Amino acid sequence: MTTQYVFSFKEGDGKNKQLLGGKGANLCEMTQIGLNVPPGFVISTEACLAYLKKKQLPKGLLEQVQNNIKQLEKQTGKRFGDAKNPLLVSVRSGSALSMPGMMDTILNLGLNKKTLKAVIKQTQNPRFAFDAYRRFIQLFSKVALGIDDEQFDLRFVAIKKKVGAVEDVDLSCEDLELACEQFLQVVEENTGRPFPEDVNEQLQLSIQAVFKSWKGKRAVDYRREFKITPRMANGTAVNIVTMVFGNMGNDSATGVGFTRNPGTGENKMFGEYLTNAQGEDVVAGIRTPKPVQELEAEMPEMYQQLEALREKLESHYHEVQDFEYTIEKGQLYCLQTRNGKMNATAMIRSSVEMAKEGLISKKQAIARVDPNSLEQVLHPRLDPHKTGESLARGLPASPGAASGICVFDADRAEIIGRSGEKVILVREETKPEDIHGFFASQGILTSRGGKTSHAAVVARGMGKACVAGAEDIRIDVRARQAVIGEFTLREGDVITIDGASGHVYAGELPTLPPQFTTLLKILLTWADKYADLKVMANADTPKMAHKALEYGAMGIGLCRTERMFNASERLPIVVDMILADSIEERQNALDRLLPIQQSDFKAIFETMSPNPVTIRLLDPPIHEFLPGEDDLKEELRSLQQYREELRGKRVLSNALPLLHETPAAGHGLNLVEIEAELKLLEAAISKKRQMLVKVQEISEVNPMLGHRGVRLGITYPEIYKMQIRAILQANADCIESGIDTQCEIMVPQVSTAEELVRVKEYVAEVQTQVESERKIKLKFKFGSMIEVVRACMRAGHLAEHAEFFSFGTNDLTQATFSFSREDAENKFLPMYNEQGILQDNPFEILDTKGVGRLMETTVKWGRSTRKKLKIGICGEQGGHPASIDFCHDIGLNYVSCSAPRVPIARLAAAQSALKAK
Amino acid sequence: MTTQYVFSFKEGDGKNKQLLGGKGANLCEMTQIGLNVPPGFVISTEACLAYLKKKQLPKGLLEQVQNNIKQLEKQTGKRFGDAKNPLLVSVRSGSALSMPGMMDTILNLGLNKKTLKAVIKQTQNPRFAFDAYRRFIQLFSKVALGIDDEQFDLRFVAIKKKVGAVEDVDLSCEDLELACEQFLQVVEENTGRPFPEDVNEQLQLSIQAVFKSWKGKRAVDYRREFKITPRMANGTAVNIVTMVFGNMGNDSATGVGFTRNPGTGENKMFGEYLTNAQGEDVVAGIRTPKPVQELEAEMPEMYQQLEALREKLESHYHEVQDFEYTIEKGQLYCLQTRNGKMNATAMIRSSVEMAKEGLISKKQAIARVDPNSLEQVLHPRLDPHKTGESLARGLPASPGAASGICVFDADRAEIIGRSGEKVILVREETKPEDIHGFFASQGILTSRGGKTSHAAVVARGMGKACVAGAEDIRIDVRARQAVIGEFTLREGDVITIDGASGHVYAGELPTLPPQFTTLLKILLTWADKYADLKVMANADTPKMAHKALEYGAMGIGLCRTERMFNASERLPIVVDMILADSIEERQNALDRLLPIQQSDFKAIFETMSPNPVTIRLLDPPIHEFLPGEDDLKEELRSLQQYREELRGKRVLSNALPLLHETPAAGHGLNLVEIEAELKLLEAAISKKRQMLVKVQEISEVNPMLGHRGVRLGITYPEIYKMQIRAILQANADCIESGIDTQCEIMVPQVSTAEELVRVKEYVAEVQTQVESERKIKLKFKFGSMIEVVRACMRAGHLAEHAEFFSFGTNDLTQATFSFSREDAENKFLPMYNEQGILQDNPFEILDTKGVGRLMETTVKWGRSTRKKLKIGICGEQGGHPASIDFCHDIGLNYVSCSAPRVPIARLAAAQSALKAK
Repeated sequence: MTTQYVFSFKEGDGKNKQLLGGKGANLCEMTQIGLNVPPGFVISTEACLAYLKKKQLPKGLLEQVQNNIKQLEKQTGKRFGDAKNPLLVSVRSGSALSMPGMMDTILNLGLNKKTLKAVIKQTQNPRFAFDAYRRFIQLFSKVALGIDDEQFDLRFVAIKKKVGAVEDVDLSCEDLELACEQFLQVVEENTGRPFPEDVNEQLQLSIQAVFKSWKGKRAVDYRREFKITPRMANGTAVNIVTMVFGNMGNDSATGVGFTRNPGTGENKMFGEYLTNAQGEDVVAGIRTPKPVQELEAEMPEMYQQLEALREKLESHYHEVQDFEYTIEKGQLYCLQTRNGKMNATAMIRSSVEMAKEGLISKKQAIARVDPNSLEQVLHPRLDPHKTGESLARGLPASPGAASGICVFDADRAEIIGRSGEKVILVREETKPEDIHGFFASQGILTSRGGKTSHAAVVARGMGKACVAGAEDIRIDVRARQAVIGEFTLREGDVITIDGASGHVYAGELPTLPPQFTTLLKILLTWADKYADLKVMANADTPKMAHKALEYGAMGIGLCRTERMFNASERLPIVVDMILADSIEERQNALDRLLPIQQSDFKAIFETMSPNPVTIRLLDPPIHEFLPGEDDLKEELRSLQQYREELRGKRVLSNALPLLHETPAAGHGLNLVEIEAELKLLEAAISKKRQMLVKVQEISEVNPMLGHRGVRLGITYPEIYKMQIRAILQANADCIESGIDTQCEIMVPQVSTAEELVRVKEYVAEVQTQVESERKIKLKFKFGSMIEVVRACMRAGHLAEHAEFFSFGTNDLTQATFSFSREDAENKFLPMYNEQGILQDNPFEILDTKGVGRLMETTVKWGRSTRKKLKIGICGEQGGHPASIDFCHDIGLNYVSCSAPRVPIARLAAAQSALKAK
Repeated sequence: MTTQYVFSFKEGDGKNKQLLGGKGANLCEMTQIGLNVPPGFVISTEACLAYLKKKQLPKGLLEQVQNNIKQLEKQTGKRFGDAKNPLLVSVRSGSALSMPGMMDTILNLGLNKKTLKAVIKQTQNPRFAFDAYRRFIQLFSKVALGIDDEQFDLRFVAIKKKVGAVEDVDLSCEDLELACEQFLQVVEENTGRPFPEDVNEQLQLSIQAVFKSWKGKRAVDYRREFKITPRMANGTAVNIVTMVFGNMGNDSATGVGFTRNPGTGENKMFGEYLTNAQGEDVVAGIRTPKPVQELEAEMPEMYQQLEALREKLESHYHEVQDFEYTIEKGQLYCLQTRNGKMNATAMIRSSVEMAKEGLISKKQAIARVDPNSLEQVLHPRLDPHKTGESLARGLPASPGAASGICVFDADRAEIIGRSGEKVILVREETKPEDIHGFFASQGILTSRGGKTSHAAVVARGMGKACVAGAEDIRIDVRARQAVIGEFTLREGDVITIDGASGHVYAGELPTLPPQFTTLLKILLTWADKYADLKVMANADTPKMAHKALEYGAMGIGLCRTERMFNASERLPIVVDMILADSIEERQNALDRLLPIQQSDFKAIFETMSPNPVTIRLLDPPIHEFLPGEDDLKEELRSLQQYREELRGKRVLSNALPLLHETPAAGHGLNLVEIEAELKLLEAAISKKRQMLVKVQEISEVNPMLGHRGVRLGITYPEIYKMQIRAILQANADCIESGIDTQCEIMVPQVSTAEELVRVKEYVAEVQTQVESERKIKLKFKFGSMIEVVRACMRAGHLAEHAEFFSFGTNDLTQATFSFSREDAENKFLPMYNEQGILQDNPFEILDTKGVGRLMETTVKWGRSTRKKLKIGICGEQGGHPASIDFCHDIGLNYVSCSAPRVPIARLAAAQSALKAK
């Protein structure tokens, strides 16, 4: 028994792409579900491999091909090589995987001098026939005979030049006939024999040529480049398909369509067609295609058939389809279909609507949408068709696009922003004291710092666009300008920043608005039902908590108490706390902070009620609240200089008393004013000096690994106790007002269980006090950040004291890699990614092989001590789908991310759960 | 059957300290091995616990005591309470653990008015009798009756005052008799009844009092303080021992002795005695005791017996003994013995000699010596009896003591040092450019930086004393002086630093020289035979390799190639390499470094042949080779200022040409010289500017986690390739000279296998070149540092490419704790240790629970890929016995530490192996 190498479209297995290739399997499938596909058959990849192995066509293959050709003749009523009603076919390659540009296609095979005449007679269109013939000769010669394309092109161009034709369409029938003659001559010159007239010889040569192309340089290179292994695709199939012609007259047409609108998702056919044209004409853009809706008037019956085709496709594939069709003399043929590529808006709409129509299940609706694509609809973004040339490029630090006028300091940003002007705050780097400038700005641009720089983290939290570390920008704050190469940017110049790409543009570029639509909300509500992971938000203020709620956060997974210190009216109190020389002075500052924090906490509890709110005690090294040493020295210098000037003026004023009210004396101050000013100056200088001393005292070589978090909390218990009191009093306030809260206190930077024990003592002490003062029973949880490697190693012991764990994967990743994020992202991570040493940026996508392994161990050890230990992640990676998948798999209870990523995380969490089931 | 509570010395189990207490068990043991111990018996701790539980003596106890008293009477021929030949006993407490100062002792129990007379008659020494009596009354009253000591003291002082006595010995027999009378009166006043005359009542009250003392405040506090749990010691035993008297005349004596000299270890009895005296007289120092050797003349027979005792003790205990004895009328009694405490020198000598004498095995000899104690003999140290008041204190950064004159910069240190003067280099902190100053100095003192600061690490490597981070010292380099509080230290003033304690002293303190003696070498040779772990040294230069060899290193476990860059003639080339703007410029600098490194490597290979030498490729961030930003700015400023001066002078010189050769013009330069100077200045300024730009460009927020190690090696492959070439060429040189080498190339800061793959490619490339250039086959190993947490997590994969692992536990500890060592040791580690949050400094003693757990996992995973994977440790902890023990237990192959710690590590490695067997 010989192997079956050839399968008609009616019998081939539509699922077996390995055997039939993608295109062949698809043609079989379409045929078998009753779509009107031109008759044809597939020669299997198995035949290809056998041919390549033995360098000859396998036994029985040609016979099987002949039999199938006979079938085609029967179906079409035409005959292959017939002088009256000839069968023409196309020959197309097609392997299991699509390899665009590698495919060889021969159209109109079966033409020769004899059949050409028949076609002319049948179509009454000699120009069409000669055009088809010259195309066939050229393609066949190139593919099957290996003749260089250029020889045909040269002849063709010469003819065009001779007759003065600009486009191919300008050529007459005679011109094309001449071309055919010359082309045949070229073939004879090259091969030493005439162009094959025998259609079976044409077919056999074509099949062999397609088979051989699998081992051709182009194909081999392509497979190496895209890492396509034999297991993925081995050999190419050959598809022999009856030719159909959309250019057979005005009852013929050709077109492409989507079953739904790929831009909006609307459930309405979308596409274009051309009457009396071939497929390649639609693509070539020589004639302007018409929207498919016009077909309804032009060929009503055909339009009805097209609508039926659309329904059939969707109901079979359960997916929006992108299809090609040809109408030949009132007969509709479907030539190809595949899943339609759509933007996020369309995916969301079609998912929800298809589910509502019953075409797909809700689970399928959830699985269809790529969570990462939601980024497109959740932030304003640049219109992809209308970007300009970028001025500079930094790190894409917080997504979104924003335009506004450049302002180089936070105070002016606030003033200008309040006046209603749109502002982009441009700084070398930002500090907590710039925070009011953030509120007033559309976006932030810095020339230093990475994705965890202050600017980046704060902007992400606020959902504002940020480009960080655009190192080519040299900022001169005093001159209120910045220089980028030869370009100078002055205050007031409009720029646009793209936080998704890191590009900075001059002028205002058009942006597309964010769309957190009802449809997306419906989809996410479905998602929440299937997800195992809860999705929390990182939010530090009542305002951010509101925003998180809007995005569907199921609680606050990380409330960074130090962020509350940053508001401009609060920072001075924090500075007083830091500069305090005695516990009393420090306590005094803390007493002023207490009511502020308490009222913030209460407002957050109220907003999130009855969902959990996890509050982290002070984490960063305290120098982050003070200005930098260089800045301070500079400020001090300029204050002292001003003092010298004023003193000089005072002398002058004394010497020339008559002058002392004249503005000419300088700053226009009189003696009394000078004295007052000097007094203020002295105080300011003294304060700055004190700050400078403190800054020098607490400066650290590696601040990320320094005196921070719980280490600070144990050094200055009064700070932690104030924060604990603020939390518990806010908790008591809520209980008294009947507001249901789930309050959680979390300790940062823990490396040993003993630290937790100490802080738990503080908590117990304050709890006893508050409970007795308020005559109330408090209920809250106590837990630990897991962001120090040692905490992972000691998880079993920590779980004795902690009721929950929260992975701080930003710090944990730093410690695991020994990469400081700020240094790595500016210095060597891009190079590592480029060279393929690391696939991803581990600060964005969780490094499952290293950091993940630590996390897995931590979960195991932690739960071996406390079976129901609640465990989550609050690092930046918690909002990234790939990382969420991992978190689901190792059994975490929740992820927490910045508010704008909450929808992405909700969808990803559902997909992870569905995948696992 | 009643429980046996009382055990005579003849029957008690000498090993059962829980039951009999330490002292009791010891007395039993001594009795049973035939030493002449005064007869006695022990009441068990079980009796004590029973008494404390029921508040009454357990049934049968008194009866058993009576029986044992009868036994004593039989043995001594005396009778308890007898009017002619009375038995006197001492009553002593004693639990399983020694608790000095908590012990209650009553001497001379059994004295009353009746027996007192008998004693007077027997001894013919009424003064002795009354003295014994008044002591007994006071001690008994205090211990058993709870009467305040002070009441007796007041009376006694009054008597002394009345008779004009200064010391107790000045009192006459009558005075003492008066004291006895008054004492008895005190008792009656306090208790309302006369002092108990019944000796059995005396005994019973004493036993109860000792039992009760176990629950007394003093004892309870003591046990809490020293964390003594009931499992360690529960209840106290009571020892009843027949009194013997060394003060019975000139045939009586009392003394203490060591079986060998505890200061030198010499095998010769060592000790002191007093004729006609009581034990407490020896201790009290009222009379000057005589060296035991004098006893040979005074009481030859007794001396013979003492020598026999010494032999018996050592042959029984197999350990040097510290014993007490009394001679009563020509009869030698041994009262106590315990293992002798000795200094390191004595321990070493006695260990080796005892093993040679066959008294102990070599294994026991090894086990006897505390490896940490070797520190005493390997460095010069301050004479512990002759230290002064410390001026300041820093961190003990490199052991050893050194004196010399203060010099505040490295250049001057070199000049002064070469002149033969002893120098201490005093700096705020040191940099590689100070290295020539290290060579010229006896020790280093810095006011900033921790135990891993440049100064500390380099000093340890060189084996020089170093005190780091003595923050109270304010150094003014320009003024060549330093201020410590109100004390000013000028260049030329002599100071002494103690690298073991961190103290700094004014003037020259006497030091004891190091002693790496033949005996120690013998002991270590024995140790090497038993050890499983090899002991390597960290050494960076040929000179250090020599030193390592002297200390018995079995190879170099860590050769830090960057240290070779630090020599003053090399650093400028390294700076050129860093400042290079193009690969060509950089290659040029590298080409100059190549022969230097190659010749160093060759010398090290030669020195260590045939042992392994592991060379680590460049590790630290390159900014470490450049001066600090502030320093550069300062230098730049002063260069510019000098330029201004010179320019001014040039103008002046031009204006007044006649003056231009007059020194009065300033620096005494003429115009030509000024021009030349200006030219040099311009070049210097330009170079400094270039450096400043580079320093700013490469500055990092957290340099420890920044652009360093293999990250740098992949960014600038030419640097690693130069180093690899230097190593392999040196290897080839050795092969050609017939020198057997085991060369190992090690990559630092590896976090992913892909990094190893890249560097391995460099190695293969260079290897091919060198092999073909030299027509030689190279043999070497390729391995990875394990100092990044992620490397631990990926150990299985790394082992595919690495033939060996070396744990860099300095960095690994930093990453595991997220503690920067420099910041932690200055800021919060001392507080953490003090508060008991961490027991040890994990940078000195391996944190087995955290870091150790990572190491264990790494070993397991690494060897699961490569069964014979060689694994070692080269972090600082590798030289600490506790850490070595852990390294042995997890199956490492070697430890590598600084040369002076090699002997310590060798001993510790042997002890670990013996412990495990």
